[in-house]
Amino acid sequence: MAKEAADAAGETEHMIENNLGETTTTTTTTGGGGGGTAEKAASPADAKEMRAVVLSGFGGLNKLRVSRRTMPEPQPGEIKIRVKACGLNFLDLMVRQGNIDSPPKPPLVPGFECCGIVESVGENTEGFEVRDRVMAFTHYNAWAEVVCAPVDFVYKMPEEMTFHEAAAFTMNFVTAYMMLFEVANLREGMSVLVHSVGGGVGQAVAQLCSTVPGVTVFGTASCFKHAAVRDSVTHVFDRNGDYVQEVKKISPEGIDIVLDCLCGENTGKGLGLLKPLGTYILYGASNMVTGETKSFFSFAKSWWQVEKVNPIKLYEDNKVIAGFSLLNLLFKQGRCSLVKTVIEKLLALFNQKKIKPVVDSLWALEEVKDAMQRIHDRGNIGKLILDVEKSPTPLMASDSTETSEAGEEEEDPEGDNDNKERMPFIQ
Amino acid sequence: MAKEAADAAGETEHMIENNLGETTTTTTTTGGGGGGTAEKAASPADAKEMRAVVLSGFGGLNKLRVSRRTMPEPQPGEIKIRVKACGLNFLDLMVRQGNIDSPPKPPLVPGFECCGIVESVGENTEGFEVRDRVMAFTHYNAWAEVVCAPVDFVYKMPEEMTFHEAAAFTMNFVTAYMMLFEVANLREGMSVLVHSVGGGVGQAVAQLCSTVPGVTVFGTASCFKHAAVRDSVTHVFDRNGDYVQEVKKISPEGIDIVLDCLCGENTGKGLGLLKPLGTYILYGASNMVTGETKSFFSFAKSWWQVEKVNPIKLYEDNKVIAGFSLLNLLFKQGRCSLVKTVIEKLLALFNQKKIKPVVDSLWALEEVKDAMQRIHDRGNIGKLILDVEKSPTPLMASDSTETSEAGEEEEDPEGDNDNKERMPFIQ
Repeated sequence: MAKEAADAAGETEHMIENNLGETTTTTTTTGGGGGGTAEKAASPADAKEMRAVVLSGFGGLNKLRVSRRTMPEPQPGEIKIRVKACGLNFLDLMVRQGNIDSPPKPPLVPGFECCGIVESVGENTEGFEVRDRVMAFTHYNAWAEVVCAPVDFVYKMPEEMTFHEAAAFTMNFVTAYMMLFEVANLREGMSVLVHSVGGGVGQAVAQLCSTVPGVTVFGTASCFKHAAVRDSVTHVFDRNGDYVQEVKKISPEGIDIVLDCLCGENTGKGLGLLKPLGTYILYGASNMVTGETKSFFSFAKSWWQVEKVNPIKLYEDNKVIAGFSLLNLLFKQGRCSLVKTVIEKLLALFNQKKIKPVVDSLWALEEVKDAMQRIHDRGNIGKLILDVEKSPTPLMASDSTETSEAGEEEEDPEGDNDNKERMPFIQ
Repeated sequence: MAKEAADAAGETEHMIENNLGETTTTTTTTGGGGGGTAEKAASPADAKEMRAVVLSGFGGLNKLRVSRRTMPEPQPGEIKIRVKACGLNFLDLMVRQGNIDSPPKPPLVPGFECCGIVESVGENTEGFEVRDRVMAFTHYNAWAEVVCAPVDFVYKMPEEMTFHEAAAFTMNFVTAYMMLFEVANLREGMSVLVHSVGGGVGQAVAQLCSTVPGVTVFGTASCFKHAAVRDSVTHVFDRNGDYVQEVKKISPEGIDIVLDCLCGENTGKGLGLLKPLGTYILYGASNMVTGETKSFFSFAKSWWQVEKVNPIKLYEDNKVIAGFSLLNLLFKQGRCSLVKTVIEKLLALFNQKKIKPVVDSLWALEEVKDAMQRIHDRGNIGKLILDVEKSPTPLMASDSTETSEAGEEEEDPEGDNDNKERMPFIQ
């Protein structure tokens, strides 16, 4: 019985591998011997199975479940990591909806970042040893008990960093740092406008701005977050208000750097707010996510609203427009060595206590739907973490939603669930 | 007789002033006493008239002549400069054609930069003394024996800099520096592609790139210039060839910084050549100038060919697109203090002998048409200088072209006049 379950899991895994093609970094070993018992509890270290969050098809929250998968083994050049915690990003919602450029075919394990302990090291893999505490970028597959990642995407954690901090560190701080210092050129006395300043990237941006003298940070956020972010943000505006007018009142000459994760009409507004020689950077399109499932209407509206830019206009205005996608940089464009140098700079700032990841809340893998709902509702201040060793709170019970194998869109009723009431752990 | 001439000149000047409105930095004093003799030779210091190049209307070379104008006197905050030399830029051709955004109404005195000796200082003007050697940006009016410029646009010349070098310095080196280090962020080991690398900005870009270790410079230029620029440019390609293929052969991964003064289809090509995180900067549109006079067809062609950019595409590709116009920055956007700090950095590099303006040739004011024809034909390597104290070569004789007061387009026959044969002074 246990053997059959293991084989079945192996088969499913294999099917996924074939579907994912070259987009996956996970590798499979066919079930075979070993006879691990297929318990729902955390697997012992010698088991060949693991728990993972699986997205069975693009759509709503009901497409997510925790299931057992064959554990990957490291290929040459890879590090096998026993995962402690994973980061949840707004991008994961877009993946769930299939609202991204060239998505892999489901079923898939989502997640782009995790941290944990090195369990083994593939052949020809230098620089890491078993028991090293590490954090890693992955091209999907992060939300699992075990992850294998190419050595170029793995970084050692500083002694003083917790796993929760590490899971909140990589994506948000690298994105914030590269936008401010690689794409733009943040210097003393400049001004920065960042949307969703209460979110993971927003908080990282605010902290990094504080490492440069005299930088003014403008941010937008839901009103209930204003008190929490006021220490790190010079001027914070209601995300539903007219931030353009608010900024112009305070800074009629405009802004040096605008960081936009919203897209749509905010692109034109951001460009309009730039000072001469100012830089607008688009790094997300969260406005395209309106409901729980992908909405063609909101997608088309965002696309339509985004202003196409005439370079001759940029010449007349002395303006700079840029896009930044860390995932494309890492996994399509092969710039992992540049990212590694950025991580080193960021860890130096962390060790000097100049930056510190802000963790919003911790969630069991089985609570991923509630975590996603919270980020969808913009309820978070800082990062949402999937804590792999955490048990679901009794209120949540275990995962009970059946997956629609036919891939139909089974719409959950939308609305502002007040997740705070049943939130298991808010730091 | 002399008095009448002076009064007439005063009237003309006054008419121009009214037309120019707020776009001029020159101010007039009505002729009145003083009784200076209206000689064609260089005026003595106490005269109230001066020689200047006057553009009587937008069009061909025949719209330019040297005539006598009332000499300006410095207003509060202004420096009066006895001009020694002026820079000629491709932009001056576009001004002559009326091929620029919101041009002032002719008649006008062209020219955006000059250098010379401080002759007097307006009230409340600090930092300069009579006899200081200075260089200046002006909003038109530079091509004259005397210029009054606001103190914020005037910079002291280093002792070792000649007037010819100073006239070749400001516009080209500030443009090159700000594009490389303010808009983009040139660092060790990067690659730069610059069009018209034999021109004034191109040569400045190449020299500034050599101040950063390991920078590879790609350039396009007419074939006859290749030998002359090979010392400062790593790879030089024929301006009429397929530079995209040539660059890709040498650097398949692309270029970090593309500097484009051509516009049109080169915008799309430049963006296509960028590495991830690379920056394309449009800083001119010389492709819009095809013949001697403004051509609606070539203008529309360039405008049409220039690719409008979708920010979402920039996001996917991790690319940066920017425009840079030094004149707009100085005279529309009020960033003269930033430019002053750039000049200081550049003068430090000059004093360390790390950069040195390349002067192509010297021309009398009366030879401005031939100078313009040379830059139009891309005959120059480095900068063309109008030397105010230089007499026209006998071959050129004095200026004899009558101005078409009706403003009609009197087309000169176009063609490749071989100016080299009658060029008076090539350095």
